[in-house]
Amino acid sequence: MKTAQANYERLHELSKKIRILEGISSLLEWDQETHMPKGASAIRSEQLSSLAGIIHTMKTAKPFANALEKLINLKTGKVVAKGLKTEQQAALREWRRNYLLATALPNAFVEEFVQLCSQSMEAWKSARKQNSFQQFAPYLDKLITMSRKKADLLGYDDHPYDAMLDLYEPESTTKELTSLFSRVQKSITDLVKKITKAKQIDNSFLFGNFSHAKQVEFGNEILNAMGYDMQYGRLDFSTHPFSSSAHPTDSRITTRIHPESLLSNILIVLHEGGHSLYEMGIPQDQYGSPLGESVSMAVHESQSRWWETRIGLSKPFWNHFFPRLKKAFAPQLNKVTEEQFFRAINQVKPSFIRVEADEVTYPLHVILRFELEKDLFSGALKVREIPEAWNEKMTNYLGITPKTNTEGCLQDVHWSMGAFGYFPTYALGNMYAAHLFQKFVQDYPDWEKQVAKGELLFIKKWLNEAIHQHGKHYRSQELLKKITGKPFTEKAYVDYLNSKYTEIYKLKR
Amino acid sequence: MKTAQANYERLHELSKKIRILEGISSLLEWDQETHMPKGASAIRSEQLSSLAGIIHTMKTAKPFANALEKLINLKTGKVVAKGLKTEQQAALREWRRNYLLATALPNAFVEEFVQLCSQSMEAWKSARKQNSFQQFAPYLDKLITMSRKKADLLGYDDHPYDAMLDLYEPESTTKELTSLFSRVQKSITDLVKKITKAKQIDNSFLFGNFSHAKQVEFGNEILNAMGYDMQYGRLDFSTHPFSSSAHPTDSRITTRIHPESLLSNILIVLHEGGHSLYEMGIPQDQYGSPLGESVSMAVHESQSRWWETRIGLSKPFWNHFFPRLKKAFAPQLNKVTEEQFFRAINQVKPSFIRVEADEVTYPLHVILRFELEKDLFSGALKVREIPEAWNEKMTNYLGITPKTNTEGCLQDVHWSMGAFGYFPTYALGNMYAAHLFQKFVQDYPDWEKQVAKGELLFIKKWLNEAIHQHGKHYRSQELLKKITGKPFTEKAYVDYLNSKYTEIYKLKR
Repeated sequence: MKTAQANYERLHELSKKIRILEGISSLLEWDQETHMPKGASAIRSEQLSSLAGIIHTMKTAKPFANALEKLINLKTGKVVAKGLKTEQQAALREWRRNYLLATALPNAFVEEFVQLCSQSMEAWKSARKQNSFQQFAPYLDKLITMSRKKADLLGYDDHPYDAMLDLYEPESTTKELTSLFSRVQKSITDLVKKITKAKQIDNSFLFGNFSHAKQVEFGNEILNAMGYDMQYGRLDFSTHPFSSSAHPTDSRITTRIHPESLLSNILIVLHEGGHSLYEMGIPQDQYGSPLGESVSMAVHESQSRWWETRIGLSKPFWNHFFPRLKKAFAPQLNKVTEEQFFRAINQVKPSFIRVEADEVTYPLHVILRFELEKDLFSGALKVREIPEAWNEKMTNYLGITPKTNTEGCLQDVHWSMGAFGYFPTYALGNMYAAHLFQKFVQDYPDWEKQVAKGELLFIKKWLNEAIHQHGKHYRSQELLKKITGKPFTEKAYVDYLNSKYTEIYKLKR
Repeated sequence: MKTAQANYERLHELSKKIRILEGISSLLEWDQETHMPKGASAIRSEQLSSLAGIIHTMKTAKPFANALEKLINLKTGKVVAKGLKTEQQAALREWRRNYLLATALPNAFVEEFVQLCSQSMEAWKSARKQNSFQQFAPYLDKLITMSRKKADLLGYDDHPYDAMLDLYEPESTTKELTSLFSRVQKSITDLVKKITKAKQIDNSFLFGNFSHAKQVEFGNEILNAMGYDMQYGRLDFSTHPFSSSAHPTDSRITTRIHPESLLSNILIVLHEGGHSLYEMGIPQDQYGSPLGESVSMAVHESQSRWWETRIGLSKPFWNHFFPRLKKAFAPQLNKVTEEQFFRAINQVKPSFIRVEADEVTYPLHVILRFELEKDLFSGALKVREIPEAWNEKMTNYLGITPKTNTEGCLQDVHWSMGAFGYFPTYALGNMYAAHLFQKFVQDYPDWEKQVAKGELLFIKKWLNEAIHQHGKHYRSQELLKKITGKPFTEKAYVDYLNSKYTEIYKLKR
């Protein structure tokens, strides 16, 4: 009889084979968005679906199930192997979860859903172009119907939307998020109202004509300062920026350069660099096991937003980088002071498009989507009622009303991909980052002094040790509590926004 | 009972799944040489060997064998399915051949061989650097021993080296190549002697400092004229240029830019472009079947050398392109005439390194390697005797003697990869191209006029129709005869070289 350790090794080995194929898949997707000849899209789809088929077969095949069952009871989740370390037991919990997810949906259902998504994506593209929600509505209707069925197949305790949330942020529930998001929405909507009434900030000098080459160079300087090592990554261009990791030693990011916008590429490299540093920081020897994976989408987003907003939109960061920026883009910024620049990059202005939103209004866009998705799943909202509900919430939360559905409910790709439950992680990421930042400040009370000198590596080191090195050992709430010593709430986040923007906009306290 | 057609479709489907994975593999290899972060080489090896394992399993698995056996007798090679088209029967012949090759070598043997190659590659790199044949000799010895065993496992009628040749150029034999190459070697050695005694050509203006960007632009102009469609391909940079195809709609090439050499990149894009046009010209609906594959390595090389030498080193090509080259690189070529340029790019000068050899001396480098490999396999030559044998042949065939093994028998990577039998295809490709060119000239007697106007698309069209569209329907000798109406011999090749260089060097006829 094999020992528990040997069985564990065997499972890790099988799992690594699957992970390797997933890494290959992500490389093909990276190539598709960066270098692939346009005419190759049909064969690329076949390559990806071939790999997906092989991966699914391996994940659900007997050898994997057998290896797993020797260690953990698939039904109850009780670890049956003796003498395993705590983190190994945690890995088994995740392996079991993945196995149950992979086997929960019949192949025929998955194939039908994939096909529906592919058609819906085309319908959405055309609908968005023509500003016609009607065109997209029948597809969205089918997507909701099938996703509700998916929720039934995956199972849930309380709300069908729970099953969706669980896919992206395990253990989060509709009930808890409803309460959390409603508190945050109220606080932020209040803050936005105050800001809208305050004296507005001029950020016009952030727009003009900024050299492509210099933008790339400046982005690389930031990445280098963050500790993003080109030995294990690279920076390319794509229509939509993303981060893609096949392995801690091959974690790539993309950006896009808008010559008319000075800030766009800078925030992108901070954001995608943040995602990529997470992947690079996960222990290589755990590759293929859950201990070699990130915790969740929201924790991932906490890393990107940490670098983008907590560092990249902070004063000390620009203490160091503004003189360099000024020099790089001389004479365009000659007349701009550091203070003016800092206020300009932190301008708050309600706008229609989520991905272009500032730090303060951003979560409102996400919360709005969460509320609509939740009601679509409960049946309280019908698909045809979406445009009206959308616009009403925009008006209530942000004080502006979209004139078209293209700048309203048709703006995001997620629904056409059937990715319901994904949006909340965008908001949670910001809140997690704020919660974690409290401990970071305790550990580095002089962090602003160091950052003002251009030193950023200690931040990467802190994130590596606090978060990255653990892989999926801890679920997100557990990790947040372990690191900070207190359970996660939105307090740090709301306090941060209020305090930062009260100062910037000189609001009454 | 299924019809033969349905069984054939089923086999094609299974085979396509394998081909898709092979395409993914070649994309990973392309990435490795072009864009991959350096630190990712270990995981890349694992990715490639994972895929190789899956591919090998699929190729040798029961479902594939069963599908094949319904159509062709694996033992005798007799097609048992009724009513199949001629080309389908040819496809079955190739499928059977591939199956027999895939199953001929025990897994343990393959793994041992792969490991030996990997060690030998390292040993070769170090040996070449230190000019120490001794360092590499023990590895080469093992490689020959294992390759002879491989030959036994694969089977052969006459000479163990036949089994190696058959891997790269099916149906070619040691006996026939010995006779062919010996005739060619004598003719060319004679020609080289005459040239060496003639008035030498000045090509010094081909070397200097030529803008990287302009070289790239000029290469792209040539590719465009050839009909290389960037919709289905792309040009990148790598240390060693290559062509890599995952599908007719995704066929990529690489080049390298030597700022000091004007001609290097031009000949590379013609060469790799020629390989890639072949892959792009293969029928897409046959993808995954042998009718969707190139005939052989030598036929492939006939396409690259066709474009590189028959077109790219021809007068009419430079009638059109020389004025453009002059303009692009003004004022560097201001004083050079077209005639001087044409003679310069066709300079013949015996040299030590195969990949840098001119059109005339090139085959001698290959024939030398063939003769050594053959004798290593028969046992007539011992590994330790290679350096001496190499140098003796260089002296006899080319009139020069390498001073070091690094510029002699250690220069090529092929042996360290266990790729014995590969070299001959380099020489055969040139000869095939010449044989085919006879028919091309018959079909387009005014080809030089058209090319002189910069029109190259009719050449691509001719190659598409004569060669590319057939996939592996015909074996190489059959195809060469079908196209030209006469069996392949070296005559057209030797005549071409003699006639072209007699004129260039103003030799006595």
